[in-house]
Amino acid sequence: MALLNPHYQKLQSGYLFQEIEKRVSAYQKAFPENVLLNLGIGDVSEPLTPTLLKALVHASSEMGDPQTFRGYGPSQGYAFLREKIAEQDFQNRITPDEIFISDGAKNDVANLQEIFCTQNQVGLADPVYPVYIDTTVMAGRTGPFHETKGYEGIHYLPCTEETGFEVLPPKAPLDLIYLCSPNNPTGVAFSKNTLKKWIAYAKEHQAVLLFDAAYEAYITDPNIPHSIYEIEGGKEVAIEIRSFSKTAGFTGLRCSYTVVPKDLQINKQSLHALWSRRHGTKFGGVSYPIQRTAEAVYSKEGHQELKTRITCCMQGAKAFKASLQKQGFTVFGGENAPYVWCKTPNGLSSWDFFDTLLTQASILSIPGSGFGRRGEGYIRFSAFAPQTTLQQATKALSCL
Amino acid sequence: MALLNPHYQKLQSGYLFQEIEKRVSAYQKAFPENVLLNLGIGDVSEPLTPTLLKALVHASSEMGDPQTFRGYGPSQGYAFLREKIAEQDFQNRITPDEIFISDGAKNDVANLQEIFCTQNQVGLADPVYPVYIDTTVMAGRTGPFHETKGYEGIHYLPCTEETGFEVLPPKAPLDLIYLCSPNNPTGVAFSKNTLKKWIAYAKEHQAVLLFDAAYEAYITDPNIPHSIYEIEGGKEVAIEIRSFSKTAGFTGLRCSYTVVPKDLQINKQSLHALWSRRHGTKFGGVSYPIQRTAEAVYSKEGHQELKTRITCCMQGAKAFKASLQKQGFTVFGGENAPYVWCKTPNGLSSWDFFDTLLTQASILSIPGSGFGRRGEGYIRFSAFAPQTTLQQATKALSCL
Repeated sequence: MALLNPHYQKLQSGYLFQEIEKRVSAYQKAFPENVLLNLGIGDVSEPLTPTLLKALVHASSEMGDPQTFRGYGPSQGYAFLREKIAEQDFQNRITPDEIFISDGAKNDVANLQEIFCTQNQVGLADPVYPVYIDTTVMAGRTGPFHETKGYEGIHYLPCTEETGFEVLPPKAPLDLIYLCSPNNPTGVAFSKNTLKKWIAYAKEHQAVLLFDAAYEAYITDPNIPHSIYEIEGGKEVAIEIRSFSKTAGFTGLRCSYTVVPKDLQINKQSLHALWSRRHGTKFGGVSYPIQRTAEAVYSKEGHQELKTRITCCMQGAKAFKASLQKQGFTVFGGENAPYVWCKTPNGLSSWDFFDTLLTQASILSIPGSGFGRRGEGYIRFSAFAPQTTLQQATKALSCL
Repeated sequence: MALLNPHYQKLQSGYLFQEIEKRVSAYQKAFPENVLLNLGIGDVSEPLTPTLLKALVHASSEMGDPQTFRGYGPSQGYAFLREKIAEQDFQNRITPDEIFISDGAKNDVANLQEIFCTQNQVGLADPVYPVYIDTTVMAGRTGPFHETKGYEGIHYLPCTEETGFEVLPPKAPLDLIYLCSPNNPTGVAFSKNTLKKWIAYAKEHQAVLLFDAAYEAYITDPNIPHSIYEIEGGKEVAIEIRSFSKTAGFTGLRCSYTVVPKDLQINKQSLHALWSRRHGTKFGGVSYPIQRTAEAVYSKEGHQELKTRITCCMQGAKAFKASLQKQGFTVFGGENAPYVWCKTPNGLSSWDFFDTLLTQASILSIPGSGFGRRGEGYIRFSAFAPQTTLQQATKALSCL
């Protein structure tokens, strides 16, 4: 008799988005004339830039010509893209053959767990992107869930006002640690000093860092590292995951990449070799026209267009943050990532403040408690929303 | 200390394609003037048909317009595509919400294992598509490999001349069974009667069938089922995987789908719910322009263009098979899939015949032994090659 993966039973239901949807539906039904100001989901809202669009349409056309049609591509990704990434994103600190092109950072942060032993102890920030937690549960690395302390076996590392929203290495010897910088949902990026501490920790305990840099393009502070490989020793302990989703508006196109340095070894076993085997066996490569579009991100014109767009987005985030501060809210983030992490006023719970924003200002946010217990008492605003939406939200908030 | 997945150590190295590449390189170095006739890899060789190309370019253009740009799509796939699949591929035997759009059948046949318990007993044909085996090993469902009997814990089901190249249910109670019909590499499709036996077996043992129908579009015999859901009870025991790769020339575009019927339950637990959770958590959906291109497969024009192309491919396969028979070879397949499975002459080993074909006729084939021990003594020819290549190969074979 076939038996099902017992670990799925431990998963808490996808409560957060279902509950949001339920409350939004009820509100829209009651006030159908009110326009919802969506600062909730972290999706991009602008179309592809002209240079990227041109590359996509051109590569698509190539698929209709016998001379330029492409069948199976290399599962690791085309060299034309990996070479540009190594050069422009990493100043050749890493080599093209250490890069694996994939169709989503979400997929990779989850799938990377497969090359590790299920007995490994996992550490992650609290609050953080929920996919790290859910996939750790699915892989059988946890015990059951407890309302008061989360999943047994997961090491929740405080990422709070007290830690400056950075995540610091614990005393306990963990094996696999997810670091998300800039962090989703707090919008705060980790300093060089903190990353140095993590590298030292990983070396001491022979731990592996899974460094999720999906939002690195939004870093404006020149002192904040964009890559963990900027820090000495990073290549010996860390896998880095990046995405074109937010950087270049690829949420609907799907392209990301993961760097597994050849220097990263455990007991003389190469993690690069293991991931290469996993990737080649269970993944067929990213669509050719999409890889050509990603390549255009590194052209002079493409780069300039995206820089302008990201600057504009971050200006919007900063203006929105400033307006919240002006109204007396305590806010974090919004400087190196387009997420603004706002403390609820008067000790309201995340959900209560979510309801206030929805019903009194037509603003859709995400309750911080949805990202972990230590997110309670906060709300996440996403400044990926169109500038006009942000401005309308600012106005609506001032009438609260 | 981080520990690595110990099961990867059991994997036999990717010997087959490395060895082929080595021998081909040596040959091409020795005879650089000879044009290689590639009947090896099962990749498509023709560009997208006009209707599909038009859909791809159009949907790509949409991504540059604020009115039509799409960000995150539903991870299960857009309804516009799932509705067409349910209607045209399954005559509404299944519903659109039972379909999950993905970016490769390879990914899905592998990833589906995650929703099952690692203790499950896996059965698969011998010879067969090697990804089933490798991913079963990676998931920790096997013991070590033995030269004479394969991996401990895998149940190799004979798929040989004696079984008419069908795979019959064993006496042993297995839990998860991969069925590939039409089979890769033999090119033989399973009869209705055989599938009936499998459904009865699955019901008796509460087993789940993973039915890989990646080549169903090439079936020419009207009595051969294209889907396991054509057989009564199929929806209660089987997951079906299909791909646009071979059907519509998508090997470079990447799109496939998996059907998990809601009737498929184990101990009253829904496999649909589990797969839905896995898909939504670890996958971000297929690129929008690619889904629009897949949708065009179901348009009147798209359907007609592909029908013409598939008919032409199968005519090539049949002619090639006939020419081999005329020369006295014993051959199978090539009627319902563009793979021709050829017995080696004079008891030659697969590799020896591979060498003969390469060095004496410049033909690249795949040694049958690469697909499993019971593939020894056979060679796989792929008729996905251009018609001119097939004709040249026919001529070259006649001079052997």
